[in-house]
Amino acid sequence: MFIADMEKKRLNGIKKIKDAIKLHNGTTLLSTGITGDDARLAKAVVDAGVKLLEPNHPAVALARGLKGVTTMHNAEQIRHEVPIQEMINVTRGVRNVVGNDIYITVGIPGGFCELVPIEIQDETFMEMSKAGADGLHIHKASLEDLKIVVEKAHKYGLLVDAYIGHPDDLHTFGLPARTPEEVHKTAKAMEEIGVDLIGLMTGMSYEGAEAGEIHPVVKERLEALVSAVKVPTLAEGGINLTNFKAFTNTGVNILVVGTAIDDMVEKAAKETVKKFIS
Amino acid sequence: MFIADMEKKRLNGIKKIKDAIKLHNGTTLLSTGITGDDARLAKAVVDAGVKLLEPNHPAVALARGLKGVTTMHNAEQIRHEVPIQEMINVTRGVRNVVGNDIYITVGIPGGFCELVPIEIQDETFMEMSKAGADGLHIHKASLEDLKIVVEKAHKYGLLVDAYIGHPDDLHTFGLPARTPEEVHKTAKAMEEIGVDLIGLMTGMSYEGAEAGEIHPVVKERLEALVSAVKVPTLAEGGINLTNFKAFTNTGVNILVVGTAIDDMVEKAAKETVKKFIS
Repeated sequence: MFIADMEKKRLNGIKKIKDAIKLHNGTTLLSTGITGDDARLAKAVVDAGVKLLEPNHPAVALARGLKGVTTMHNAEQIRHEVPIQEMINVTRGVRNVVGNDIYITVGIPGGFCELVPIEIQDETFMEMSKAGADGLHIHKASLEDLKIVVEKAHKYGLLVDAYIGHPDDLHTFGLPARTPEEVHKTAKAMEEIGVDLIGLMTGMSYEGAEAGEIHPVVKERLEALVSAVKVPTLAEGGINLTNFKAFTNTGVNILVVGTAIDDMVEKAAKETVKKFIS
Repeated sequence: MFIADMEKKRLNGIKKIKDAIKLHNGTTLLSTGITGDDARLAKAVVDAGVKLLEPNHPAVALARGLKGVTTMHNAEQIRHEVPIQEMINVTRGVRNVVGNDIYITVGIPGGFCELVPIEIQDETFMEMSKAGADGLHIHKASLEDLKIVVEKAHKYGLLVDAYIGHPDDLHTFGLPARTPEEVHKTAKAMEEIGVDLIGLMTGMSYEGAEAGEIHPVVKERLEALVSAVKVPTLAEGGINLTNFKAFTNTGVNILVVGTAIDDMVEKAAKETVKKFIS
Protein backbone atom coordinates (compact mmCIF):
# COMPACT_ATOMS: atom_id res chain seq x y z
CA MET A 1 0.00 0.00 0.00
CA PHE A 2 1.24 3.54 -0.73
CA ILE A 3 2.85 4.82 2.45
CA ALA A 4 2.55 8.60 2.23
CA ASP A 5 -1.10 8.43 1.11
CA MET A 6 -2.09 6.32 4.09
CA GLU A 7 -0.02 8.45 6.48
CA LYS A 8 -1.91 11.49 5.20
CA LYS A 9 -5.18 9.67 5.78
CA ARG A 10 -4.18 8.93 9.39
CA LEU A 11 -3.11 12.52 10.00
CA ASN A 12 -6.47 13.62 8.63
CA GLY A 13 -8.19 11.32 11.14
CA ILE A 14 -6.10 12.63 14.05
CA LYS A 15 -7.00 16.19 13.04
CA LYS A 16 -10.73 15.36 13.14
CA ILE A 17 -10.34 14.04 16.69
CA LYS A 18 -8.23 16.92 17.97
CA ASP A 19 -10.60 19.47 16.41
CA ALA A 20 -13.58 17.79 18.10
CA ILE A 21 -11.86 17.72 21.51
CA LYS A 22 -10.98 21.41 21.14
CA LEU A 23 -14.48 22.35 19.93
CA HIS A 24 -16.05 20.65 22.95
CA ASN A 25 -13.66 22.23 25.46
CA GLY A 26 -11.46 19.26 26.22
CA THR A 27 -14.00 16.42 26.29
CA THR A 28 -16.00 15.33 23.26
CA LEU A 29 -18.48 12.53 22.60
CA LEU A 30 -18.04 9.30 20.63
CA SER A 31 -21.64 8.44 19.81
CA THR A 32 -22.35 4.73 19.39
CA GLY A 33 -25.27 2.28 19.67
CA ILE A 34 -28.13 3.14 17.32
CA THR A 35 -26.56 6.51 16.48
CA GLY A 36 -23.43 4.73 15.25
CA ASP A 37 -24.99 2.30 12.79
CA ASP A 38 -28.39 3.62 11.70
CA ALA A 39 -27.77 6.24 9.01
CA ARG A 40 -30.97 8.11 9.97
CA LEU A 41 -29.84 8.62 13.56
CA ALA A 42 -26.15 9.04 12.70
CA LYS A 43 -27.25 11.99 10.54
CA ALA A 44 -29.48 13.30 13.33
CA VAL A 45 -26.73 13.39 15.97
CA VAL A 46 -24.21 14.86 13.54
CA ASP A 47 -26.76 17.60 12.80
CA ALA A 48 -26.88 18.11 16.58
CA GLY A 49 -23.11 18.63 16.75
CA VAL A 50 -21.57 15.17 17.24
CA LYS A 51 -18.19 14.77 15.49
CA LEU A 52 -17.23 11.16 16.34
CA LEU A 53 -19.27 8.04 15.53
CA GLU A 54 -18.77 4.35 16.26
CA PRO A 55 -20.67 1.62 14.43
CA ASN A 56 -19.79 -1.77 15.90
CA HIS A 57 -20.62 -5.41 15.27
CA PRO A 58 -22.47 -6.23 18.53
CA ALA A 59 -24.75 -3.21 18.08
CA VAL A 60 -25.38 -4.26 14.47
CA ALA A 61 -26.27 -7.77 15.68
CA LEU A 62 -28.90 -6.14 17.90
CA ALA A 63 -30.08 -3.81 15.11
CA ARG A 64 -30.58 -6.73 12.72
CA GLY A 65 -32.23 -9.02 15.26
CA LEU A 66 -29.47 -11.55 14.58
CA LYS A 67 -30.33 -14.87 16.30
CA GLY A 68 -33.10 -12.98 18.08
CA VAL A 69 -30.80 -11.14 20.51
CA THR A 70 -32.53 -8.29 22.35
CA THR A 71 -29.84 -7.09 24.76
CA MET A 72 -26.28 -5.90 24.22
CA HIS A 73 -25.08 -8.48 26.77
CA ASN A 74 -26.48 -11.24 24.53
CA ALA A 75 -25.35 -9.52 21.35
CA GLU A 76 -21.76 -9.74 22.62
CA GLN A 77 -22.08 -13.55 22.58
CA ILE A 78 -22.85 -13.74 18.84
CA ARG A 79 -21.21 -10.56 17.52
CA HIS A 80 -18.59 -12.53 15.56
CA GLU A 81 -21.40 -13.89 13.33
CA VAL A 82 -22.10 -10.48 11.81
CA PRO A 83 -20.73 -10.73 8.25
CA ILE A 84 -17.82 -8.38 7.64
CA GLN A 85 -19.65 -7.19 4.50
CA GLU A 86 -22.43 -5.91 6.76
CA MET A 87 -19.93 -3.76 8.68
CA ILE A 88 -18.47 -2.48 5.39
CA ASN A 89 -21.99 -1.56 4.21
CA VAL A 90 -22.87 0.12 7.50
CA THR A 91 -19.66 2.16 7.40
CA ARG A 92 -20.23 3.24 3.80
CA GLY A 93 -23.87 4.14 4.50
CA VAL A 94 -23.05 6.23 7.55
CA ARG A 95 -20.19 7.92 5.72
CA ASN A 96 -22.54 8.66 2.78
CA VAL A 97 -24.86 10.70 4.97
CA VAL A 98 -22.53 12.39 7.49
CA GLY A 99 -19.90 13.72 5.09
CA ASN A 100 -16.11 13.60 5.33
CA ASP A 101 -15.56 15.81 8.38
CA ILE A 102 -16.91 13.27 10.87
CA TYR A 103 -14.57 10.74 12.52
CA ILE A 104 -15.83 7.16 12.16
CA THR A 105 -14.24 4.30 14.11
CA VAL A 106 -15.70 0.84 13.59
CA GLY A 107 -15.91 -2.35 15.64
CA ILE A 108 -15.58 -5.42 13.41
CA PRO A 109 -15.54 -9.19 13.98
CA GLY A 110 -12.00 -10.09 15.06
CA GLY A 111 -11.40 -6.62 16.47
CA PHE A 112 -12.72 -7.56 19.90
CA CYS A 113 -11.49 -10.46 22.02
CA GLU A 114 -13.51 -13.13 20.16
CA LEU A 115 -13.78 -16.60 21.70
CA VAL A 116 -13.88 -18.21 18.26
CA PRO A 117 -10.96 -18.18 15.86
CA ILE A 118 -11.52 -15.01 13.81
CA GLU A 119 -8.72 -13.46 11.77
CA ILE A 120 -8.95 -10.05 10.18
CA GLN A 121 -7.79 -10.34 6.59
CA ASP A 122 -5.61 -7.64 5.02
CA GLU A 123 -8.43 -7.13 2.54
CA THR A 124 -10.80 -6.33 5.41
CA PHE A 125 -8.58 -3.49 6.65
CA MET A 126 -8.48 -2.17 3.07
CA GLU A 127 -12.23 -2.51 2.52
CA MET A 128 -13.08 -0.84 5.84
CA SER A 129 -10.75 2.01 5.00
CA LYS A 130 -12.21 2.36 1.49
CA ALA A 131 -15.76 2.26 2.88
CA GLY A 132 -15.03 5.40 4.85
CA ALA A 133 -13.69 4.32 8.24
CA ASP A 134 -11.11 6.61 9.86
CA GLY A 135 -10.28 4.09 12.50
CA LEU A 136 -11.01 0.75 14.12
CA HIS A 137 -12.56 0.42 17.56
CA ILE A 138 -10.46 -2.39 19.02
CA HIS A 139 -11.05 -4.43 22.17
CA LYS A 140 -8.22 -6.96 21.94
CA ALA A 141 -6.98 -8.44 25.20
CA SER A 142 -3.18 -8.50 24.77
CA LEU A 143 -0.42 -6.22 23.59
CA GLU A 144 0.69 -8.86 21.07
CA ASP A 145 -2.72 -9.09 19.39
CA LEU A 146 -3.06 -5.33 19.50
CA LYS A 147 0.31 -4.90 17.81
CA ILE A 148 -0.78 -7.02 14.84
CA VAL A 149 -3.95 -4.96 14.46
CA VAL A 150 -2.18 -1.59 14.79
CA GLU A 151 0.41 -2.44 12.14
CA LYS A 152 -2.16 -3.58 9.58
CA ALA A 153 -4.59 -0.76 10.39
CA HIS A 154 -1.87 1.86 9.95
CA LYS A 155 -0.83 0.29 6.65
CA TYR A 156 -4.30 1.03 5.27
CA GLY A 157 -4.61 4.51 6.80
CA LEU A 158 -6.73 3.49 9.77
CA LEU A 159 -6.18 4.72 13.32
CA VAL A 160 -6.78 2.44 16.30
CA ASP A 161 -8.62 3.21 19.53
CA ALA A 162 -7.94 0.45 22.06
CA TYR A 163 -8.80 -0.09 25.71
CA ILE A 164 -7.66 -1.15 29.13
CA GLY A 165 -10.00 -3.21 31.27
CA HIS A 166 -10.02 -4.86 34.68
CA PRO A 167 -9.30 -8.61 34.76
CA ASP A 168 -12.60 -9.14 36.65
CA ASP A 169 -14.82 -7.28 34.12
CA LEU A 170 -17.93 -9.12 32.87
CA HIS A 171 -16.90 -8.55 29.23
CA THR A 172 -13.25 -8.67 28.18
CA PHE A 173 -13.01 -5.35 26.38
CA GLY A 174 -9.34 -4.59 26.73
CA LEU A 175 -5.90 -5.34 28.08
CA PRO A 176 -6.15 -6.40 31.73
CA ALA A 177 -4.75 -4.04 34.36
CA ARG A 178 -5.69 -4.54 38.02
CA THR A 179 -4.15 -1.51 39.73
CA PRO A 180 -3.75 2.17 38.76
CA GLU A 181 -0.02 1.46 38.43
CA GLU A 182 -0.77 -1.33 35.95
CA VAL A 183 -3.16 0.97 34.06
CA HIS A 184 -0.39 3.56 33.83
CA LYS A 185 2.16 1.01 32.63
CA THR A 186 -0.22 -0.66 30.16
CA ALA A 187 -1.24 2.68 28.67
CA LYS A 188 2.40 3.59 28.10
CA ALA A 189 3.05 0.22 26.44
CA MET A 190 0.02 0.72 24.18
CA GLU A 191 1.20 4.19 23.21
CA GLU A 192 4.61 2.78 22.42
CA ILE A 193 3.29 0.25 19.90
CA GLY A 194 1.39 3.04 18.13
CA VAL A 195 -2.17 2.89 19.49
CA ASP A 196 -3.65 6.23 18.44
CA LEU A 197 -6.30 6.64 21.14
CA ILE A 198 -6.25 4.83 24.48
CA GLY A 199 -9.33 4.20 26.56
CA LEU A 200 -10.33 2.90 29.95
CA MET A 201 -13.27 0.53 30.33
CA THR A 202 -15.24 1.26 33.48
CA GLY A 203 -16.52 -2.32 33.66
CA MET A 204 -20.09 -0.97 33.63
CA SER A 205 -20.89 -1.46 29.94
CA TYR A 206 -24.64 -1.47 29.18
CA GLU A 207 -25.45 -0.77 32.82
CA GLY A 208 -24.87 2.81 33.89
CA ALA A 209 -23.02 4.06 36.94
CA GLU A 210 -24.58 5.58 40.01
CA ALA A 211 -25.99 9.03 39.46
CA GLY A 212 -23.50 11.87 39.61
CA GLU A 213 -20.59 9.74 40.72
CA ILE A 214 -17.76 7.66 39.44
CA HIS A 215 -16.61 4.89 41.68
CA PRO A 216 -13.38 6.11 43.32
CA VAL A 217 -11.53 3.11 41.89
CA VAL A 218 -12.62 3.99 38.34
CA LYS A 219 -11.66 7.62 38.91
CA GLU A 220 -8.21 6.59 40.09
CA ARG A 221 -7.75 4.27 37.12
CA LEU A 222 -8.90 6.95 34.69
CA GLU A 223 -6.50 9.48 36.17
CA ALA A 224 -3.70 6.93 35.88
CA LEU A 225 -4.49 6.61 32.17
CA VAL A 226 -4.82 10.35 31.52
CA SER A 227 -1.50 11.10 33.21
CA ALA A 228 0.33 8.29 31.38
CA VAL A 229 -0.06 9.17 27.69
CA LYS A 230 0.08 12.03 25.20
CA VAL A 231 -2.47 10.51 22.77
CA PRO A 232 -6.16 11.32 23.24
CA THR A 233 -7.86 9.30 25.96
CA LEU A 234 -11.33 7.73 26.19
CA ALA A 235 -13.66 6.39 28.86
CA GLU A 236 -16.27 3.76 28.01
CA GLY A 237 -18.97 1.86 29.87
CA GLY A 238 -22.05 3.04 31.72
CA ILE A 239 -21.53 6.75 31.05
CA ASN A 240 -24.86 8.57 31.17
CA LEU A 241 -26.39 12.01 31.58
CA THR A 242 -26.25 11.85 35.38
CA ASN A 243 -22.60 10.85 35.72
CA PHE A 244 -20.80 12.19 32.65
CA LYS A 245 -19.61 15.42 34.25
CA ALA A 246 -17.68 13.42 36.85
CA PHE A 247 -15.92 11.70 33.92
CA THR A 248 -15.25 15.01 32.18
CA ASN A 249 -13.60 16.30 35.35
CA THR A 250 -10.88 13.64 35.15
CA GLY A 251 -9.53 15.27 32.01
CA VAL A 252 -10.40 12.37 29.73
CA ASN A 253 -10.82 13.57 26.13
CA ILE A 254 -13.58 11.36 24.75
CA LEU A 255 -16.67 9.84 26.34
CA VAL A 256 -17.92 6.74 24.53
CA VAL A 257 -21.71 6.68 24.96
CA GLY A 258 -24.17 4.19 23.51
CA THR A 259 -26.70 2.74 25.94
CA ALA A 260 -27.58 6.12 27.50
CA ILE A 261 -28.54 7.44 24.05
CA ASP A 262 -30.26 4.22 22.95
CA ASP A 263 -32.36 4.27 26.11
CA MET A 264 -33.67 7.77 25.38
CA VAL A 265 -34.38 6.86 21.76
CA GLU A 266 -36.31 3.74 22.78
CA LYS A 267 -38.21 5.75 25.37
CA ALA A 268 -39.23 8.30 22.72
CA ALA A 269 -40.43 5.54 20.37
CA LYS A 270 -42.42 3.87 23.15
CA GLU A 271 -44.01 7.08 24.41
CA THR A 272 -45.00 8.16 20.91
CA VAL A 273 -46.69 4.91 19.88
CA LYS A 274 -48.47 4.68 23.23
CA LYS A 275 -50.22 7.97 22.44
CA PHE A 276 -51.52 6.57 19.14
CA ILE A 277 -52.92 3.39 20.68
CA SER A 278 -54.12 4.66 24.05
CA MET B 1 -47.39 -24.78 -2.84
CA PHE B 2 -49.59 -26.60 -0.33
CA ILE B 3 -52.97 -24.87 -0.42
CA ALA B 4 -54.47 -25.55 3.01
CA ASP B 5 -51.22 -24.72 4.80
CA MET B 6 -50.99 -21.33 3.16
CA GLU B 7 -54.69 -20.65 3.70
CA LYS B 8 -54.16 -21.35 7.38
CA LYS B 9 -51.22 -18.95 7.40
CA ARG B 10 -53.39 -16.21 5.86
CA LEU B 11 -56.21 -16.81 8.35
CA ASN B 12 -53.65 -16.55 11.12
CA GLY B 13 -52.57 -13.18 9.72
CA ILE B 14 -56.17 -11.91 9.47
CA LYS B 15 -56.72 -12.95 13.08
CA LYS B 16 -53.72 -10.92 14.24
CA ILE B 17 -55.12 -7.83 12.51
CA LYS B 18 -58.66 -8.25 13.77
CA ASP B 19 -57.43 -8.88 17.32
CA ALA B 20 -55.33 -5.69 17.19
CA ILE B 21 -58.25 -3.60 15.88
CA LYS B 22 -60.47 -4.96 18.64
CA LEU B 23 -57.82 -4.47 21.34
CA HIS B 24 -57.38 -0.83 20.33
CA ASN B 25 -61.12 -0.10 20.21
CA GLY B 26 -61.63 -0.02 16.47
CA THR B 27 -58.48 1.76 15.31
CA THR B 28 -55.00 0.33 15.71
CA LEU B 29 -51.52 1.45 14.64
CA LEU B 30 -49.29 0.09 11.87
CA SER B 31 -45.87 1.29 13.03
CA THR B 32 -43.35 1.91 10.26
CA GLY B 33 -40.22 3.97 9.57
CA ILE B 34 -37.40 3.21 12.01
CA THR B 35 -39.74 1.14 14.22
CA GLY B 36 -40.50 -1.12 11.25
CA ASP B 37 -36.98 -2.06 10.22
CA ASP B 38 -34.64 -1.58 13.20
CA ALA B 39 -35.00 -4.63 15.44
CA ARG B 40 -34.10 -2.58 18.54
CA LEU B 41 -36.95 -0.14 18.00
CA ALA B 42 -39.37 -2.73 16.61
CA LYS B 43 -38.92 -4.56 19.94
CA ALA B 44 -39.36 -1.30 21.86
CA VAL B 45 -42.71 -0.39 20.26
CA VAL B 46 -43.99 -3.95 20.53
CA ASP B 47 -43.13 -3.83 24.25
CA ALA B 48 -45.20 -0.61 24.32
CA GLY B 49 -48.25 -2.38 22.85
CA VAL B 50 -47.90 -2.12 19.06
CA LYS B 51 -49.24 -5.19 17.21
CA LEU B 52 -48.61 -4.30 13.53
CA LEU B 53 -45.23 -3.47 11.98
CA GLU B 54 -44.17 -2.46 8.49
CA PRO B 55 -40.57 -2.65 7.31
CA ASN B 56 -40.29 -1.22 3.79
CA HIS B 57 -37.61 -0.74 1.16
CA PRO B 58 -37.53 3.09 1.00
CA ALA B 59 -37.13 3.30 4.79
CA VAL B 60 -34.36 0.69 4.62
CA ALA B 61 -32.64 2.76 1.90
CA LEU B 62 -32.65 5.66 4.38
CA ALA B 63 -31.54 3.44 7.28
CA ARG B 64 -28.56 2.14 5.30
CA GLY B 65 -27.55 5.51 3.86
CA LEU B 66 -27.96 4.02 0.38
CA LYS B 67 -26.60 6.47 -2.23
CA GLY B 68 -26.41 9.01 0.59
CA VAL B 69 -30.17 9.68 0.75
CA THR B 70 -31.23 11.59 3.85
CA THR B 71 -34.96 12.15 3.25
CA MET B 72 -37.83 9.77 2.55
CA HIS B 73 -38.70 11.81 -0.55
CA ASN B 74 -35.23 11.05 -1.97
CA ALA B 75 -35.29 7.47 -0.68
CA GLU B 76 -38.39 6.85 -2.83
CA GLN B 77 -36.30 7.62 -5.92
CA ILE B 78 -33.77 4.83 -5.27
CA ARG B 79 -35.83 2.36 -3.21
CA HIS B 80 -35.76 -0.26 -6.00
CA GLU B 81 -31.97 -0.57 -5.52
CA VAL B 82 -32.37 -2.13 -2.06
CA PRO B 83 -31.43 -5.79 -2.56
CA ILE B 84 -34.36 -8.15 -1.94
CA GLN B 85 -32.06 -10.15 0.34
CA GLU B 86 -31.80 -7.08 2.59
CA MET B 87 -35.60 -7.02 2.95
CA ILE B 88 -35.62 -10.75 3.69
CA ASN B 89 -32.95 -10.24 6.38
CA VAL B 90 -34.79 -7.27 7.88
CA THR B 91 -38.02 -9.26 8.05
CA ARG B 92 -36.34 -12.25 9.66
CA GLY B 93 -34.51 -10.04 12.17
CA VAL B 94 -37.65 -8.17 13.22
CA ARG B 95 -39.59 -11.43 13.46
CA ASN B 96 -36.80 -12.93 15.58
CA VAL B 97 -37.22 -10.28 18.26
CA VAL B 98 -40.98 -9.54 18.26
CA GLY B 99 -42.30 -13.11 18.34
CA ASN B 100 -45.07 -14.71 16.33
CA ASP B 101 -48.07 -12.73 17.58
CA ILE B 102 -47.12 -9.52 15.81
CA TYR B 103 -48.39 -8.80 12.27
CA ILE B 104 -45.58 -7.88 9.88
CA THR B 105 -46.30 -6.49 6.42
CA VAL B 106 -43.32 -5.63 4.23
CA GLY B 107 -42.67 -3.23 1.37
CA ILE B 108 -40.28 -4.79 -1.18
CA PRO B 109 -38.78 -3.66 -4.50
CA GLY B 110 -41.42 -4.30 -7.16
CA GLY B 111 -44.25 -3.98 -4.66
CA PHE B 112 -44.55 -0.25 -5.17
CA CYS B 113 -45.11 1.46 -8.53
CA GLU B 114 -41.44 1.32 -9.59
CA LEU B 115 -40.32 3.35 -12.61
CA VAL B 116 -37.74 0.75 -13.55
CA PRO B 117 -38.65 -2.75 -14.71
CA ILE B 118 -38.76 -4.78 -11.49
CA GLU B 119 -40.49 -8.14 -11.33
CA ILE B 120 -41.19 -9.99 -8.11
CA GLN B 121 -40.07 -13.58 -8.54
CA ASP B 122 -42.16 -16.43 -7.13
CA GLU B 123 -39.14 -17.29 -5.01
CA THR B 124 -39.28 -13.82 -3.46
CA PHE B 125 -42.86 -14.31 -2.27
CA MET B 126 -41.79 -17.64 -0.80
CA GLU B 127 -38.64 -16.25 0.85
CA MET B 128 -40.51 -13.27 2.34
CA SER B 129 -43.13 -15.62 3.71
CA LYS B 130 -40.50 -17.98 5.14
CA ALA B 131 -38.60 -15.04 6.67
CA GLY B 132 -41.64 -14.25 8.78
CA ALA B 133 -43.78 -11.80 6.81
CA ASP B 134 -47.54 -12.05 7.30
CA GLY B 135 -48.25 -9.76 4.40
CA LEU B 136 -46.91 -7.44 1.74
CA HIS B 137 -47.38 -3.68 1.85
CA ILE B 138 -48.23 -2.97 -1.78
CA HIS B 139 -48.40 0.37 -3.59
CA LYS B 140 -49.11 -0.79 -7.17
CA ALA B 141 -50.92 1.67 -9.42
CA SER B 142 -53.39 -0.52 -11.32
CA LEU B 143 -55.88 -3.27 -10.63
CA GLU B 144 -54.14 -5.52 -13.17
CA ASP B 145 -50.73 -5.27 -11.46
CA LEU B 146 -52.36 -5.65 -8.08
CA LYS B 147 -54.15 -8.81 -9.21
CA ILE B 148 -50.85 -10.47 -10.14
CA VAL B 149 -49.38 -9.61 -6.75
CA VAL B 150 -52.44 -10.74 -4.78
CA GLU B 151 -52.55 -14.15 -6.51
CA LYS B 152 -48.89 -14.88 -5.91
CA ALA B 153 -48.92 -13.50 -2.37
CA HIS B 154 -51.91 -15.64 -1.43
CA LYS B 155 -50.24 -18.71 -2.93
CA TYR B 156 -47.43 -18.34 -0.38
CA GLY B 157 -49.66 -17.48 2.56
CA LEU B 158 -49.14 -13.72 2.43
CA LEU B 159 -51.90 -11.15 2.83
CA VAL B 160 -51.87 -7.92 0.83
CA ASP B 161 -52.53 -4.39 2.04
CA ALA B 162 -52.94 -2.07 -0.95
CA TYR B 163 -53.89 1.56 -1.39
CA ILE B 164 -55.92 4.13 -3.26
CA GLY B 165 -54.32 7.47 -4.09
CA HIS B 166 -55.21 10.67 -5.88
CA PRO B 167 -53.95 11.03 -9.47
CA ASP B 168 -52.28 14.34 -8.50
CA ASP B 169 -50.33 12.93 -5.50
CA LEU B 170 -46.59 13.68 -5.37
CA HIS B 171 -45.75 9.97 -4.99
CA THR B 172 -47.80 7.31 -6.80
CA PHE B 173 -48.67 5.08 -3.86
CA GLY B 174 -51.86 3.48 -5.11
CA LEU B 175 -54.63 3.09 -7.63
CA PRO B 176 -55.75 6.52 -8.83
CA ALA B 177 -59.22 7.70 -7.80
CA ARG B 178 -60.12 11.39 -8.18
CA THR B 179 -63.57 11.59 -6.53
CA PRO B 180 -65.15 9.93 -3.47
CA GLU B 181 -67.31 7.96 -5.92
CA GLU B 182 -64.18 6.69 -7.65
CA VAL B 183 -62.64 5.82 -4.27
CA HIS B 184 -65.76 3.82 -3.40
CA LYS B 185 -65.76 2.01 -6.74
CA THR B 186 -62.00 1.32 -6.70
CA ALA B 187 -62.15 -0.03 -3.15
CA LYS B 188 -64.92 -2.45 -4.13
CA ALA B 189 -62.92 -3.61 -7.16
CA MET B 190 -59.85 -4.17 -4.95
CA GLU B 191 -61.88 -6.14 -2.45
CA GLU B 192 -63.26 -8.25 -5.29
CA ILE B 193 -59.81 -9.34 -6.50
CA GLY B 194 -58.95 -10.41 -2.96
CA VAL B 195 -56.99 -7.50 -1.47
CA ASP B 196 -57.01 -8.23 2.26
CA LEU B 197 -56.67 -4.71 3.64
CA ILE B 198 -57.49 -1.57 1.70
CA GLY B 199 -56.03 1.83 2.48
CA LEU B 200 -56.37 5.44 1.46
CA MET B 201 -53.32 7.60 0.86
CA THR B 202 -53.84 11.13 2.13
CA GLY B 203 -51.29 12.53 -0.32
CA MET B 204 -49.35 14.00 2.61
CA SER B 205 -46.70 11.29 3.01
CA TYR B 206 -43.62 12.44 4.98
CA GLU B 207 -45.20 15.85 5.58
CA GLY B 208 -47.92 15.86 8.23
CA ALA B 209 -51.37 17.40 8.02
CA GLU B 210 -52.49 20.52 9.79
CA ALA B 211 -52.90 20.14 13.52
CA GLY B 212 -56.12 18.56 14.65
CA GLU B 213 -57.74 18.49 11.27
CA ILE B 214 -58.12 16.35 8.19
CA HIS B 215 -58.71 18.22 4.99
CA PRO B 216 -62.46 17.84 4.22
CA VAL B 217 -61.60 16.24 0.88
CA VAL B 218 -59.47 13.57 2.59
CA LYS B 219 -62.21 12.96 5.16
CA GLU B 220 -64.79 12.50 2.41
CA ARG B 221 -62.50 10.11 0.53
CA LEU B 222 -61.74 8.12 3.68
CA GLU B 223 -65.43 7.80 4.48
CA ALA B 224 -66.05 6.63 0.91
CA LEU B 225 -63.47 3.88 1.47
CA VAL B 226 -64.71 2.84 4.90
CA SER B 227 -68.32 2.54 3.69
CA ALA B 228 -67.36 0.56 0.57
CA VAL B 229 -65.65 -2.55 1.95
CA LYS B 230 -65.87 -5.24 4.60
CA VAL B 231 -62.11 -5.83 4.85
CA PRO B 232 -60.07 -3.77 7.36
CA THR B 233 -59.23 -0.27 6.16
CA LEU B 234 -56.12 1.87 6.53
CA ALA B 235 -55.14 5.52 6.25
CA GLU B 236 -51.57 6.51 5.40
CA GLY B 237 -49.65 9.74 4.93
CA GLY B 238 -48.96 12.63 7.26
CA ILE B 239 -50.77 11.16 10.25
CA ASN B 240 -49.32 12.57 13.48
CA LEU B 241 -50.11 13.08 17.15
CA THR B 242 -52.05 16.27 16.52
CA ASN B 243 -54.35 14.98 13.78
CA PHE B 244 -54.73 11.24 14.37
CA LYS B 245 -57.96 11.49 16.36
CA ALA B 246 -59.68 13.12 13.39
CA PHE B 247 -58.63 10.06 11.36
CA THR B 248 -59.84 7.67 14.06
CA ASN B 249 -63.23 9.37 13.99
CA THR B 250 -63.79 8.33 10.36
CA GLY B 251 -63.99 4.69 11.44
CA VAL B 252 -60.80 3.65 9.65
CA ASN B 253 -59.28 0.58 11.28
CA ILE B 254 -55.54 1.11 10.93
CA LEU B 255 -53.39 4.23 11.01
CA VAL B 256 -50.08 3.82 9.18
CA VAL B 257 -47.56 6.03 10.97
CA GLY B 258 -43.86 6.39 10.23
CA THR B 259 -42.57 9.97 9.99
CA ALA B 260 -44.36 11.15 13.14
CA ILE B 261 -42.57 8.43 15.16
CA ASP B 262 -39.23 8.87 13.38
CA ASP B 263 -39.34 12.60 14.11
CA MET B 264 -39.73 12.01 17.85
CA VAL B 265 -36.96 9.40 17.84
CA GLU B 266 -34.58 11.75 16.02
CA LYS B 267 -35.48 14.55 18.40
CA ALA B 268 -34.67 12.32 21.40
CA ALA B 269 -31.28 11.37 19.90
CA LYS B 270 -30.44 15.01 19.16
CA GLU B 271 -31.50 16.31 22.56
CA THR B 272 -29.56 13.59 24.38
CA VAL B 273 -26.26 14.08 22.56
CA LYS B 274 -26.54 17.86 22.88
CA LYS B 275 -26.50 17.47 26.66
CA PHE B 276 -23.23 15.50 26.50
CA ILE B 277 -21.45 18.06 24.30
CA SER B 278 -22.91 21.31 25.61
